[in-house]
Amino acid sequence: MARIAYVNGAYTPLKDAFVHIEDRGYQFADGIYEVVVRVGGRFWDLDGHLARWSRSLKELSIAEPMSERALRLIIHRLVEKNRLGDCYIYMQATRGVAPRNHTFPLEGTRPSLVMTVKPLDMNKLNANAQKGISVITEPDIRWDRVDIKSVGLLANTLAKENAKKAGSGEAWLVRDGKITEGGSSNAWIVDKSGALITHPLGHEILGGVTRQAVIACAEKLQIRVIERAFSVDEAENASEAFITSATNLVTPVTAIDGVKIGGGKPGTVALRLREAYIAYNAG
Amino acid sequence: MARIAYVNGAYTPLKDAFVHIEDRGYQFADGIYEVVVRVGGRFWDLDGHLARWSRSLKELSIAEPMSERALRLIIHRLVEKNRLGDCYIYMQATRGVAPRNHTFPLEGTRPSLVMTVKPLDMNKLNANAQKGISVITEPDIRWDRVDIKSVGLLANTLAKENAKKAGSGEAWLVRDGKITEGGSSNAWIVDKSGALITHPLGHEILGGVTRQAVIACAEKLQIRVIERAFSVDEAENASEAFITSATNLVTPVTAIDGVKIGGGKPGTVALRLREAYIAYNAG
Repeated sequence: MARIAYVNGAYTPLKDAFVHIEDRGYQFADGIYEVVVRVGGRFWDLDGHLARWSRSLKELSIAEPMSERALRLIIHRLVEKNRLGDCYIYMQATRGVAPRNHTFPLEGTRPSLVMTVKPLDMNKLNANAQKGISVITEPDIRWDRVDIKSVGLLANTLAKENAKKAGSGEAWLVRDGKITEGGSSNAWIVDKSGALITHPLGHEILGGVTRQAVIACAEKLQIRVIERAFSVDEAENASEAFITSATNLVTPVTAIDGVKIGGGKPGTVALRLREAYIAYNAG
Repeated sequence: MARIAYVNGAYTPLKDAFVHIEDRGYQFADGIYEVVVRVGGRFWDLDGHLARWSRSLKELSIAEPMSERALRLIIHRLVEKNRLGDCYIYMQATRGVAPRNHTFPLEGTRPSLVMTVKPLDMNKLNANAQKGISVITEPDIRWDRVDIKSVGLLANTLAKENAKKAGSGEAWLVRDGKITEGGSSNAWIVDKSGALITHPLGHEILGGVTRQAVIACAEKLQIRVIERAFSVDEAENASEAFITSATNLVTPVTAIDGVKIGGGKPGTVALRLREAYIAYNAG
């Protein structure tokens, strides 16, 4: 079946899903997005993603394209129309269409809203996690407000492409000697005492919805969580390492820049957290 | 007459000019652009803009959408079809359309190319220059490769919107106490000896085509040019200040954060350079 997208009020075959060339998302990266997964008929942490969606829009003074209730309705309808089981939902809003000019368009310009879905293969994700991934480090050259989930992802794509070329699954970004986060995930290590360490919230990282859920899961499992920046050297000497994101859930990291972590095998803490995170969402 | 745009091989009314929602320009700011002016039947420094166009593509490993010769042909045809006299040409290329994934699409994915034109009012530009503009300073929160003319302009739009709200024409961006450049222009001051000072080339500023032309003009006028970073304090105590860009040409700055420069009137050096720059392009 041909996939259906939502574009500014219309449900349309994905192949016919277009936006105007003067959409500010296209000319200025003036927009934001969210990716939500739906597994076993449940949207995982949709509340958290919609809260961050609103926060990103507010930080950029972009008007909400519609009420949260209407947005939820479209998400549900789009999944239904695509007759998908487990799937990813991608949603993007921009400041709308206007004659090209850096400054904001006229008051009342309607923000754009587009949404797509695609199938998610939980078995494949699980197999990936059982194997673990390697990561490389890359300089963090992104802008200073990556807490806003904007579509300005050029630096992320370059870092992740370098990771792919190196046969790795993620790039860990390094600023001032510290790992901030991954190109599309949060970065974590487990120290010798079994405590989790991850970069604190702020303008330097995205406040991951999965990151917050994993902190909650860790607390339930009585695993200590320390929110502080850590260095590459510290990471390479950690007991375990892993990444979190809506699409990776919790995925163990078995090597950093070719240096094996925890003997090059997925760590037990990471796998326990993954299980707890899945249970947390399965409800 | 309805304006005509060029979109991926077709000339189409601007109102019908659309790109796919999975164009990487829309989802990742994975693209670059140029703005060229045409005045009195001449394209100003088209060679320089096309050279930078190629450089930006190369830095991002995006394939050239077409040969330079074909690109020039489209520029000419689009101006012709729009029956415009003096005008701006906006051209944008992206890594093309592909299922959303941070890493680059499959080898052979065709880059996208869109182009628009709009009228330019030289009298208005000249009136603006005779009056001069005020600027505000804003933190430079952009990424670390602004020498690439990418469409990742969100930080620029935010800074320029703040300038507009403050009644100013441009935001001068400050990193580590030094002014790098404006939100969409290069920044210059004139010191007490009459020498020009502007930030050196590198990853921190865009290598302005107009900037280079103005350096050439200054040399012809035997005005000394010093390429070094300068502070806000130094700028506020300068004899003159001005900005350069393809669309602003040379435009005097008469105040920085409310502090008058050169008595709050356009400076003579800036106005001489503007004249020389116009003559240089008029050929």
